[in-house]
Amino acid sequence: MANKLSSSEIAVQMSAVPHWSRTGDLIERTFTFGDFLASMRFVNRVAVEAERTQHHPDILVKYNRVTLGYSTHDAGGLTEKDFGAALAADAASVS
Amino acid sequence: MANKLSSSEIAVQMSAVPHWSRTGDLIERTFTFGDFLASMRFVNRVAVEAERTQHHPDILVKYNRVTLGYSTHDAGGLTEKDFGAALAADAASVS
Repeated sequence: MANKLSSSEIAVQMSAVPHWSRTGDLIERTFTFGDFLASMRFVNRVAVEAERTQHHPDILVKYNRVTLGYSTHDAGGLTEKDFGAALAADAASVS
Repeated sequence: MANKLSSSEIAVQMSAVPHWSRTGDLIERTFTFGDFLASMRFVNRVAVEAERTQHHPDILVKYNRVTLGYSTHDAGGLTEKDFGAALAADAASVS
């Protein structure tokens, strides 16, 4: 199981994902696309990665905007899994 | 364009979608599935219907739960399109 990160470890990880914001045990980013279908293509790429890693974000789709939220519930905080998933989502958003 | 429904028209329509709740100009339902993949299958069925009808819900996925919200923004309220989409989503959730 991934270990819960300390505040200083989180600060280091956050610097690698500048488009993400942290609220407590959650990191979030809203992505903007051209239309609903582009949003759905992104969501499906994220879903494949979520199943592969067994780490699932909360996903909110509002037409051309998709908000992802990651937290590691069973660790009770943020872990490396959350930041790895955030980096993967960033990459998937431009592919 | 679909016309905004009156309060009494909305009451009639709501009786046809007993699993949905209304908050102002929005109707919402949370669907529960077996796992994340089942949620995503449902979301993709809803997305196909949304594109076909050009009426797109807000979609929130939390692992095995999917919340859909419909409103007709360009009519400034609820219309027959929202209730038609709700019925279609109900049907898609059990297919």
